Amino acid sequence: MKTRYGILALVLVTSGAGQKQPKPLVLEEQGSFFVGGESKALPAPPPPPAGAPPGRGGNIFAGGDITINQMYVQYQIPENGNRHVPVVMVHGCCLSSKTWETTPDGRMGWNEYFVRKGRPVYLADQVSRARSGFDPTKFSAVKAGQAPLSELPNVLDASHQAAWAIFRFGPTYGTAFPDEQFPMASVDELYKQMIPDLNNLLPNPNPTWTNMAALAVKLKGAVLIGHSESGFFPEQAALIDPSGVRGVVSIEMPCVTTLTPAQLATLAKIPTLVMFGDHLGDVQGGFNTWPGSFASCNTFVKQIKDAGGDAQMMSLPEMGIKGNSHMLMQDKNNAQLADLILGWIDSHVEKKAKGH
Amino acid sequence: MKTRYGILALVLVTSGAGQKQPKPLVLEEQGSFFVGGESKALPAPPPPPAGAPPGRGGNIFAGGDITINQMYVQYQIPENGNRHVPVVMVHGCCLSSKTWETTPDGRMGWNEYFVRKGRPVYLADQVSRARSGFDPTKFSAVKAGQAPLSELPNVLDASHQAAWAIFRFGPTYGTAFPDEQFPMASVDELYKQMIPDLNNLLPNPNPTWTNMAALAVKLKGAVLIGHSESGFFPEQAALIDPSGVRGVVSIEMPCVTTLTPAQLATLAKIPTLVMFGDHLGDVQGGFNTWPGSFASCNTFVKQIKDAGGDAQMMSLPEMGIKGNSHMLMQDKNNAQLADLILGWIDSHVEKKAKGH
Repeated sequence: MKTRYGILALVLVTSGAGQKQPKPLVLEEQGSFFVGGESKALPAPPPPPAGAPPGRGGNIFAGGDITINQMYVQYQIPENGNRHVPVVMVHGCCLSSKTWETTPDGRMGWNEYFVRKGRPVYLADQVSRARSGFDPTKFSAVKAGQAPLSELPNVLDASHQAAWAIFRFGPTYGTAFPDEQFPMASVDELYKQMIPDLNNLLPNPNPTWTNMAALAVKLKGAVLIGHSESGFFPEQAALIDPSGVRGVVSIEMPCVTTLTPAQLATLAKIPTLVMFGDHLGDVQGGFNTWPGSFASCNTFVKQIKDAGGDAQMMSLPEMGIKGNSHMLMQDKNNAQLADLILGWIDSHVEKKAKGH
Repeated sequence: MKTRYGILALVLVTSGAGQKQPKPLVLEEQGSFFVGGESKALPAPPPPPAGAPPGRGGNIFAGGDITINQMYVQYQIPENGNRHVPVVMVHGCCLSSKTWETTPDGRMGWNEYFVRKGRPVYLADQVSRARSGFDPTKFSAVKAGQAPLSELPNVLDASHQAAWAIFRFGPTYGTAFPDEQFPMASVDELYKQMIPDLNNLLPNPNPTWTNMAALAVKLKGAVLIGHSESGFFPEQAALIDPSGVRGVVSIEMPCVTTLTPAQLATLAKIPTLVMFGDHLGDVQGGFNTWPGSFASCNTFVKQIKDAGGDAQMMSLPEMGIKGNSHMLMQDKNNAQLADLILGWIDSHVEKKAKGH
């Protein structure tokens, strides 16, 4: 069994490295847009000095309105893209949509892989991150002395050391697991993707959840994929408005196991896939929450099934696929894992819909 | 003359709205990567309480190293993309690479337009913005009491009112110029692109300049396009390392007119295009720096010419193209303006190279 997978992995890698672009990519359409967003008034500028001419006191940047809570979405639709349900991908903590693009070692990301498999793909930068921007008013208020220092938002930035542990590259910093699937020779390129996380600025419900639900409606049905920090966002979006959510794919996160029967009934109508990689309990030191997250998701999957739903846990090591990190969309076998998700969408979301 | 342009604009709009995607987009390759970036040590975490087990004190996010000053780049190469010099586009203040994508009213952005004209296109998020991330250490130090409040960085966020004035949508907020080329019915979509600007965090020289120069070398030659805040970045990049810079296109910014003869001699070897839109002096109130910026760039163009260089000022209204805003890559006649730049690249960068 182990040999079989070893050979398979070798074939994939050889094919990927030897022919980076097997054939031209043909797109029916591409572009970007925003979902959601609302106006917010900035504090009024200080009054102009006595005798100053009317106007804005010379500081055009003081006061006025800004837009917050919008979600930036970038999309590509392949030729004949209406054959398949659109897929929405949302990144995790301290990352952006770069997560799904070219891997740290230069292989094709899931964004293009899914497009080449005929799927319209939508990448969303979480609200408060990357091209979605963030609400700066708390920072400005503290700087201007209008709010106390205690209200200065916490800016979360994961270090290389934190990534090594949380993303499960190896037992201790600087040492990789012998069967590690993450392309460790290019780990510095992953570190460049890690950017400050300001999610603690966000209201509840998180506007990203609301915007994901609205995006699914706009697309007239979509499969929502979340990862890590956003792993349970597809479910949270469906709990706000399930009408556009055709399927949810939750990758590596803690699951909520305290949903009400009504909430579980809502989610039980939506096919659900949960995926976890390897080495969940093998990292030494201060970070060992993965076994608990995995257990919570097994509970969640059982709760959905008990409510009559179609839910599946894909534990990769239990399927014989070893060595996957937390960043499985960037791992060396990322195409193999994408195929698992694509196959699940075909049989649990699309065939089911045709059967009805 | 006015009627002629009116008809031309109508044809463009009709063609754009009626057939958003005239034919499939065929790409030889696409992807994303980072240029630059360096490690920075975070302050050491506080010592663990007496008797605590060894490790990181339970806070995996405390201490360690992060990566800063990297520049995120997204690219697309059309079929037979080696016919033309690659083009690098860098956005302005309070914006991201969204600047160059689908316009606020849903038309094709310059990114795809240039690709469809056979150009490899590279979009860079400025260092400290969007998917490039920013250095959070000053915020964290102030919050932790390790730095005084006075060192809290200023977060610049342009309001709707500031955009209306600076981007020259009309004489006063809420009133558009009668011939305004910006798609004003969709101005709310532009406001969603406007995100906090942390450029004042950056060291000197700005790492974006260094990274743009390195990107041009990596591409074995590129035309660098900057806009507004980044308008003079192509020149700044060339002053750091001109070896990869085949041409510079500077759109709507103040020009530096205090360069040394040696610096001017460096830039004089690179074909230079400067472009300005309309209504430079027509906005009332506190913001009226455009006439000064325009004058500074006329001086700069003359300085380059006097140094033996090939520099051109395209003042759109002087060419009979009226009503363009500051966001001319999003204006209703954006394809017409792109063609001006493409034609300039062909004749001043590419034909010249062939002639040598």
